[in-house]
Amino acid sequence: MRIPVDLPKSYRLLNHGPTVLVSSAHEGRKNVMAAAWNMPLDFDPPKIAVVIAGETFTRELVEASHEFCLCVPAAEMAALTYKVGSISGRSGDKFETLGITYTKGTVVEAPLVDGCVAWLECRVISEPHFQQAYDLFLGEVVAAWADDRDFREGRWAFSAPGRRTLHHVSGGAFFAPGELLQASED
Amino acid sequence: MRIPVDLPKSYRLLNHGPTVLVSSAHEGRKNVMAAAWNMPLDFDPPKIAVVIAGETFTRELVEASHEFCLCVPAAEMAALTYKVGSISGRSGDKFETLGITYTKGTVVEAPLVDGCVAWLECRVISEPHFQQAYDLFLGEVVAAWADDRDFREGRWAFSAPGRRTLHHVSGGAFFAPGELLQASED
Repeated sequence: MRIPVDLPKSYRLLNHGPTVLVSSAHEGRKNVMAAAWNMPLDFDPPKIAVVIAGETFTRELVEASHEFCLCVPAAEMAALTYKVGSISGRSGDKFETLGITYTKGTVVEAPLVDGCVAWLECRVISEPHFQQAYDLFLGEVVAAWADDRDFREGRWAFSAPGRRTLHHVSGGAFFAPGELLQASED
Repeated sequence: MRIPVDLPKSYRLLNHGPTVLVSSAHEGRKNVMAAAWNMPLDFDPPKIAVVIAGETFTRELVEASHEFCLCVPAAEMAALTYKVGSISGRSGDKFETLGITYTKGTVVEAPLVDGCVAWLECRVISEPHFQQAYDLFLGEVVAAWADDRDFREGRWAFSAPGRRTLHHVSGGAFFAPGELLQASED
């Protein structure tokens, strides 16, 4: 079940470095792409940074709508994550082509892709120089969600191997998280 | 043995989301802190982004020297990684206090912390607004290195469980990478 994540703790959804799906929507058009290059930027209000290349359809929709969603895919979605990162939404709706189901964001219009372990709905923090010079988009997280099977009480608790996060290596290769190391009791 | 990594492939050292140590040096003073909030920003010339909070000693040294190094710690360095993230270099040289050994960077002055699996020497790309408004530093990677036991021919090949990367969850908890998932043959 999708449960809300306290906004000041939403950085924990990205802190360990997962690859995300960036979803976007504007005036009836929508898209989704993969992005390994993302990170938290602040705790409260929570902000994130993500790289969205200049020529992409996602870039067009994000610049038009000033919104996007970072969906954190599950390991069992590795093939899909690779596919949405390998084709362009300009040549057809990826949701239809790939049979991706979703619900609309609760605050933003961008789709929350079904089957993910977490979702961060974001409003673009307008920084035109960042965007143009570095393809770098900053977002304020305005709603955050997790599947309560996999993230509970502010912590990851993956319910199955296929419900872990994906960490992009290169090409079609991803690491899934292994054991949790505890360097201290904090 | 520390071997050079081709600069256009150096993004692969950060692509899967490891926590890094940010090392810095200026006029005889040096420091090292931990940073989960980092990501690649471009391939060639390679650029990275990292968050360095305003009040830190690292911030002072980086702003003075316009340089830093991202050292990618091994899992066996989890306790050290947690410790350097929990104390300030202003209260004493962390290298002495914690017995951290290092060699000087080959292009920058910042220390390359011994025992890490990879190192990215960076020159700050001056963006004062990014730095002041968001604690966000961009760096051009001017030299990159990896331990050839753990990264070979442009790919991670961790030689032992303790030689994997660290992915910060919260507090003193880190994930280490588990198995490699292959979503395609690419």
